[in-house]
Parts: sequence; C-alpha cells; structure tokens
Amino acid sequence: MSEGNKQLITGKSIILRLEIDTNRIRFSDIVSAIADEGGDLVAIDVIQTKQELSIRDLTVNVADTLFTSKIVDKIKELDGVALVNVSDRTFLLHLGGKIETKLKSPIQNRDDLSRVYTPDVARVCLAIKEDPRKAYSLTIKRNTVAVVSDGTAVLGLGNIGPYAAMPVMEGKAMLFKQFADVDAFPVCLDTQDTEEIIRTIKAIAPAFGGINLEDIASPRCFEIEERLKRELDIPVFHDDQHGTAVVLYAGLISALKLVGKSIDSIKVVVCGIGAAGIACSKILLAAGVKELIGVDRDGALVSGRNYDNPMWAWYAENTNPNKTTGSLQEVLAGADVFIGVSAAGLLKREDVLSMAADPIVFAMANPNPEIRPEEIEDIAAVVATGRSDYPNQINNVLCFPGIFRGALDCRATDINEEMKLAAAEAIASVITDEERNKLYVIPSAFNQKVAKLIRDRVVEAAIRTGVARRIPREYR
Amino acid sequence: MSEGNKQLITGKSIILRLEIDTNRIRFSDIVSAIADEGGDLVAIDVIQTKQELSIRDLTVNVADTLFTSKIVDKIKELDGVALVNVSDRTFLLHLGGKIETKLKSPIQNRDDLSRVYTPDVARVCLAIKEDPRKAYSLTIKRNTVAVVSDGTAVLGLGNIGPYAAMPVMEGKAMLFKQFADVDAFPVCLDTQDTEEIIRTIKAIAPAFGGINLEDIASPRCFEIEERLKRELDIPVFHDDQHGTAVVLYAGLISALKLVGKSIDSIKVVVCGIGAAGIACSKILLAAGVKELIGVDRDGALVSGRNYDNPMWAWYAENTNPNKTTGSLQEVLAGADVFIGVSAAGLLKREDVLSMAADPIVFAMANPNPEIRPEEIEDIAAVVATGRSDYPNQINNVLCFPGIFRGALDCRATDINEEMKLAAAEAIASVITDEERNKLYVIPSAFNQKVAKLIRDRVVEAAIRTGVARRIPREYR
Repeated sequence: MSEGNKQLITGKSIILRLEIDTNRIRFSDIVSAIADEGGDLVAIDVIQTKQELSIRDLTVNVADTLFTSKIVDKIKELDGVALVNVSDRTFLLHLGGKIETKLKSPIQNRDDLSRVYTPDVARVCLAIKEDPRKAYSLTIKRNTVAVVSDGTAVLGLGNIGPYAAMPVMEGKAMLFKQFADVDAFPVCLDTQDTEEIIRTIKAIAPAFGGINLEDIASPRCFEIEERLKRELDIPVFHDDQHGTAVVLYAGLISALKLVGKSIDSIKVVVCGIGAAGIACSKILLAAGVKELIGVDRDGALVSGRNYDNPMWAWYAENTNPNKTTGSLQEVLAGADVFIGVSAAGLLKREDVLSMAADPIVFAMANPNPEIRPEEIEDIAAVVATGRSDYPNQINNVLCFPGIFRGALDCRATDINEEMKLAAAEAIASVITDEERNKLYVIPSAFNQKVAKLIRDRVVEAAIRTGVARRIPREYR
Repeated sequence: MSEGNKQLITGKSIILRLEIDTNRIRFSDIVSAIADEGGDLVAIDVIQTKQELSIRDLTVNVADTLFTSKIVDKIKELDGVALVNVSDRTFLLHLGGKIETKLKSPIQNRDDLSRVYTPDVARVCLAIKEDPRKAYSLTIKRNTVAVVSDGTAVLGLGNIGPYAAMPVMEGKAMLFKQFADVDAFPVCLDTQDTEEIIRTIKAIAPAFGGINLEDIASPRCFEIEERLKRELDIPVFHDDQHGTAVVLYAGLISALKLVGKSIDSIKVVVCGIGAAGIACSKILLAAGVKELIGVDRDGALVSGRNYDNPMWAWYAENTNPNKTTGSLQEVLAGADVFIGVSAAGLLKREDVLSMAADPIVFAMANPNPEIRPEEIEDIAAVVATGRSDYPNQINNVLCFPGIFRGALDCRATDINEEMKLAAAEAIASVITDEERNKLYVIPSAFNQKVAKLIRDRVVEAAIRTGVARRIPREYR
C-alpha cells in the first residue's frame, strides 16, 4: 500500500483484509496488536480458508486517522500476516460502483421475452421509425439524462481524467434519481478535444432527454455548451455554471427580502470571473441587476481594455456601467453584495466593513470560502458559503434534479434563462417570510418540497417561452 | 392514427384512451359499440375529468387483431368521442422505456451525501487517479456493458436509425441483467460513419467493462469490431456474429454426439456468407472442421476467383480445401451439416435427401427458416431454427449474458476464440446424454444453469489464454 493510499484512510470505521498464516500467528495476537494501537475490533468476516491460510475482513472502529496508520504499521510488522487491503466506509460504498440497472418489469417467461425483445419489439421499433417523437413515450429518453464530463476540472482536484471522474458522475446520477426520479447515466469521455467532445455527445444523444455537462474546464466548457445547445434538440445544462448561478440567485432573492433592498438598486461585485462567475453574473443581469462589477486577478473588468480571454472581453462590455476601476478592495466600497467564486482568504473583514449597510456576502470558494463566516458574522447581514458545515449552503443539489425533472416532463428543447430564473424563484419561495433569517436564506439540500416546486415553475416557464414540446396534463 | 399504426395493433388485450364529451354521448353507448364489434370491456381507468370532458382508459379483450381495427373504426364513427390512443400490452410495457437507474445504497442524510458525493468522493477519485486499475473496483466499470448500435441492421427491419433501434437495445440490456446480473446501457449512435462510430465508442469507453455491438450492418461491422478490439483494452463482441456462432456450435456439438460423428470428419455447407455466416464458419474452423464450404448467391466460394467483397476473398482462401464448385444443391450432396443464415425457402426436401446419412440442418434464417422443419422431420437427424415455436432454437440469449459475465469477472481484455469455444461447450454440456434427442440438442433460453456454466468456462479460458487481468478467488 502506497503512502498516497494511506493518506486516503479516514472515517471512524475501517475494514482490514488480512491474509493470515495460522501456522505462524494466533488470531488473538492480531486482535491484541490492533487494540494496542487504539483500534476496537467490532466484526470479523471469514472470506476464505485454505489449509493454513485464512483471509479475513476485520471491521475496526478508530477514533481518528492517526490510529489507522498506526494499526496498519503494526500489522505490517507482525509475522505471518499480510495486509491485503484497507477500506473505510466511503470506499466500501463505492465497491463495484454506486448505481445499477433495474428492469421496470421482469422477464419471467417466453411471453414476456417475446414482448420486450424479439419478435414483438419490432412493432415498437416501427412505430418510432414512423414517428420519431414516439421515442419520448416508448424509450428511456423520456426520463434519462447523460451526466457528461471529460474529467478536466473535477471538484477542486483539477484534470484527473475520465476514470477518476467516474465516482463524481455516478454520485450525480444518484442525486438525480433520489431527488427527482430522473434516470441518469455517467458518460466520462476519454478525450479532451472540444470538437471530439461535441461530436461524441451528439452521436450518443438519441437515448437521452437531456445533457448535464459537469466538471469540464474553462474556457472549453463555454464552446461545448453553446454548440450543443444550438446543434441538439434536447436541453444542455452545464451544472457548474448554471446550477451554481440558480442557487446563488435563489439565495440572493431571499437575502434581499431580509434586508429590504430591490434587485435593480443594488451594487454587486463578483470576484472570480471563471465559468461559475460568468454564469452567476449572467443570471443576475437577466434578473435585473444594474450595477455589476467583475473582478479578477488584475482588478475590475472594464470595457475598452484588451482582454485575451474572449469571455472577459464580453464581460467587460456587458457589466460595470460606470467603468469603475481598481482592486477588489477598491470596487467593493459601497457595494451591497459580494459574490466570491475565487479562492480562500481573498476577502477581509475590513473589506466587508467598507460595503454598504447590511452587506450580503456569498463566499463560495471551494473547499475554503473567501472569508470564514465567523470573522464577519457580527457585521454582515447574510453570509452564505458552499460548505455544509456553515449555515446557508449554496448547493447545486438544490437545483439540477428539479430543473431536469421539469425539462423532461415538458420535453423541453432547451433550458433557457427564463427557466433558470423560475427555478431560482421556486427555491427561494420554499422559505416563508416568518422562517427567513440571516442563518436561513436558502433551504437544505434535503428539503423535500424543492424539486417539485422547481419542476412546476420550470414547466410553466418552458411553456411560456415556447420550448415545451409537450404540455403536461395539469397545464392543458 | 395512421394506417401504419393500425397494423401494429395485435395481442389479446388492448387499451383505448378515449376523450368523452359526456353531454353528447352516454358511456353505456360506447360500451355497447365495443361489444358489438367483438370487444370485451374488462377494466376502466378514469384519467381525468374536466367539466363535461372525461378521459378514460378502456381495457378491452379481443380475440384477434381484426376486431381491434373494427372497434377502432366504430369508435371513430361515434359522436362525442375522440380516440386519443390505442395501446396493446407490448406497447404498454415500453411506456417510458424498459430500464431505469437504481441506487445501490440510498442517500438518506447528509452523511450519506458526503460519502457518495462531495467532499468524501474526492478520496475515491484520487485513489483511481493514482491507480487507474481501481476503476474496476470503485466504479460501475466492474459490471457494466455498453449495448451499441447505429440502427443500420435492426432485427429483420433494416436501417431504421438510432431512435427506432432503442427498444431492441433496451431489451438487450434487460436480458443482460435478468440472465447474468450484468448492468448494461443502450448506446444508439446518431451516425453511420465507420470512423465516427469507432471514435465515439472509444471516447465513452471509460465507464464500461465491455462493448456489445449489435445490429450494425455488414461490412461496416467487421471493421468496427476489429479496430475496437485492437484499440480498446476491454472486450468487444459483435453479438449478431459471435453470439449466433457460439450457440450454433453448441447445437452442433450436441447434434454430432447424437449421430456419432466427430467434428474433424464432417463436411459442412454454410449458406449465406454475411456477418453471421462468416462468424459461424470461423468458430467451426477453430473447432476443427476440415471440410467447410461457403455458398452465396453465385454458388460456392472458391479460392483463386476475384471477389469484390474482401470478406468473401478471405473466406474463399480459408475454406473449401477441395475447391468444390457449384450451386448450393450441387455442393450439398454428401454433406453432413447444412447451416443456413440466408433466406426462407432456399433449402428443399430433395436437397436434404442428397446429404450424407443422418443429415443435420441448422435453418436459421429469420423470421422464416430456409426450410420448414415439418418438411424434413422424417429424414433429418436434427433440425434447428432461430424460432421459438419449433424445437432446438438457436437463440443468442443463451450466450451473451454468460460470456460477458465471465469476461467482467476476470476483467478480460478480450473475448477471444478460446473463450467463445468454451462458451459453446458450456452450453452443450447442459444437456446430458440421457436427455439429448433430436428435438432437444440445445437448452432453452430460460435454462437457469447456462449463464453460470458459461461464465465459469469463459473465465477459465481467459486465464489460460492470458487475457484475464484478475483471477477470481475460486481460481487462485
């Protein structure tokens, strides 16, 4: 076991797979050794016994990672024992993957077989050939989304490739199913070429009712999304951009109600003009924000300057109407809202003190926010982060299941700005005026009302904007 | 509803969705009209009621398709009723598709969420990044196969495209799960370009432990399979070729035992040198058949002639050692085995009479065999077809679930000839010498022993030939 692997072991319960030579060591000696190093043996599974060789899984409770390493080291010193593997609960949950196929109806006899497969299936094929729209009623297209990544910007881990990206995409597929009964399948692409990615997704699109792009590096992600939106007739949604933007805007709607400010009167500073920062800015512009200033490593983006990054050039032209220049600290003075999608530590307490009355701070850098909430809890009206261990978590899980549920239910050709705004309003609407307070501007990811509310509002917006190909019965 | 659709309605139970204007017609009048035309109303589901409009699903038993059309026509004549839809049980089984996603463990709370998704999933991602082979233990790759088609040769329907092909691929995915607990996902490609198909499958391969090619037209299917076998490190198997070949050879092993002939002493004539015919011939050559003659529309394929089709050129060089020329009728004289993968009616009773003693006939043309079994049951030692309504059905379902189960369990890089031969031997071994008779040379698709037996033999063959990347515990 390598050093890298050893560092991966955390959690309170570990499982050690040992190959024990029963001629050379007594099992009780192993148990003692584990206890000596702070491990509590709670279960034994005998995996295999072959003459003098016994393979056993020992489940051991430990108080801390530290003990795991000590136990592992101690076992390695013992004579007659080989450590085959160490797993913790997270790894065990991943064994063999996290999702599987389920038949909607079993194949119990020849009659069943002849209906779901040859020869009877031919009639269903011909019905779709005659009218391809029937793919939506007679195949999984009606309820299935591809979760697509090239593995270039996975979580905060960077370009780890398609194999290592799989656990995230499988996790995403689980969330789709759990929160909105959407079937999703992970598509991890063994190419990082923009054109090849576009071609591949277009080629596999027939099975899917929507495409969720995930963890694709910027700026490639913009072109891929834009092209696919234009060239496919099913919705394409880059969750890192738009999921974040929708949930951020939901939090902002709620926070503005709390402080009694209106969206068209506020000054907003966005720090970090990457994929998520741009998407957050776009939804705020669509929602009516007038004074929006983007800041990146060279300070505020201002029209008239030359930017190599075409997205920055676009950004500068379409924001910052007063052409404010300067550093983050300089442009933040007098701002009502700070939105951070940048890096830990970029925001200081004195910066927040320079903002307008009742400052609203969305410090969403991952895994560590631009400022720790406890540093400004006494001076900020609202603080939100991307973390689950602070109040007001801006969590994409609130958005994507419901937004795709809505898009699939009305067979939408697109997820457009109106649908995103509607989704944000739906999320914000979950919290009543009585419930709303500075520690509760956004519902929890486990709030059971959210997905259904989003779905309804998204369907309405899709019908209103003409992208729905089917009007669900309740709207006819 | 179009004429085409109307012809699709068969089966003994149909469901009529009617929109009924209760001001203009009484429900009892509708029931009478259905009864008048031979329909028996057995269930009513009220779908929606809105003022004077009622939408209902009527389940009606009919004796025959003929009655369905009559009922449909009669209802169309009624005033105050609109026929929204007619479905039979096969169509109902296809509503919304036939497979769905299932979570292996539920996400019930934040602790679950943090393990299967961020932040804890990052540790699993990093473990795979460090050692990509871990994708097999920590992702769905371990148990998942892509069922890939471009929709160009679906069943006997021809080039019906990727949307219309979906029900077949979904059905296949069901069979994988039902018979061998293999998770499979349908990939229907919106391209018919060989290079594009190859590129696409390579790009999506990371999620899969194997590729099952399906219903891809010849000769494109050969290049796609050959290239992918070479360029991917997971097994690639074109079921229309090799599944058919494996089950055919299984049947032949069993039939030869029955007549007491040995594989290396027989003369075999293969009629129809397309994808399936070539695959059947190759497995027979690998199994030791010496005298094998291929026949297509111009008669026997003989070396030294010029063939435009490169597969025919290969075939002529590698078979027919005695350079026998002539029509099917001519070369069949004295043959021990006829293998047909061609078209209905090509084989006559007098042809079978000209064969050697105890002639064995595999008439596998779909949907109608080269000769109807009842025409030769008195003179043939064994007759097998592709149909379920005759004895000895050569059904691919016997092969592909078990062969992929074996390949996945040992993380095989390939499904090679030895593994295919082993699979055929496993299928043949299910039938004991006592059980074996002319009407029972091949087990039923529902025989519960087959998949496990194939799996074991395939794993052994993979280990023996060095393509196994993992030795299952029972073989260590």
